[in-house]
Amino acid sequence: MAIIHRMLRDRPQFDWEDVLARAYDGPTVHLATRRILIGPHEGAPNFHLRYFEVQPGGYTTLDQHPHDHGVILIRGRARVRLADAETELACGDVVYIPGNEIHQFFCVGDAPMGFLCIVPARR
Amino acid sequence: MAIIHRMLRDRPQFDWEDVLARAYDGPTVHLATRRILIGPHEGAPNFHLRYFEVQPGGYTTLDQHPHDHGVILIRGRARVRLADAETELACGDVVYIPGNEIHQFFCVGDAPMGFLCIVPARR
Repeated sequence: MAIIHRMLRDRPQFDWEDVLARAYDGPTVHLATRRILIGPHEGAPNFHLRYFEVQPGGYTTLDQHPHDHGVILIRGRARVRLADAETELACGDVVYIPGNEIHQFFCVGDAPMGFLCIVPARR
Repeated sequence: MAIIHRMLRDRPQFDWEDVLARAYDGPTVHLATRRILIGPHEGAPNFHLRYFEVQPGGYTTLDQHPHDHGVILIRGRARVRLADAETELACGDVVYIPGNEIHQFFCVGDAPMGFLCIVPARR
């Protein structure tokens, strides 16, 4: 049976019914949270959908792994490091990051930044 | 190497650099377009990301298939049929539709409706 997570519109952060903000720590993470919108809890066998929100001055982990990422920015502005290059992203921009490419997302400006991130379920 | 599709912000429809609106026809489709944001062209082996935009009075195909869908509404308001039930969705709401569940999305109101849709690459 289908599962709906309604967005909760009375919050400063992007939040959804029955979706927890997860611990998301590490030596290269700063002021970022992760929410699993579609994952094991929804019984999704093929792909997972997560939402990462990063506060001003913050960034996601400097990452490199065999699985690929699909990303779309849905809040604020970002700078992304992809391999040895950096570029700015605006709301709505889409990034496909193939496996093994180094990547890291930074919040730009004084408002929160948030992006959806798709990954394979098996990784 | 990563691929970026920047959103084109000078259009009435949601559009991205190097992404075409695709033919999306059928007996049960009306006033809807499909854009493949991440797919075979990006070399994505695990998941695909598409954007469907539906004009007022329009709807997507009445569908039932073995693969699952992840959906997030990013524009306007929708009504979704899931099996034998219907419910309204607002911008930001997330739906996970497991395989074989009947589903169809309708535009609600007088503004366009649009949603991101994730599917497994092999389907």
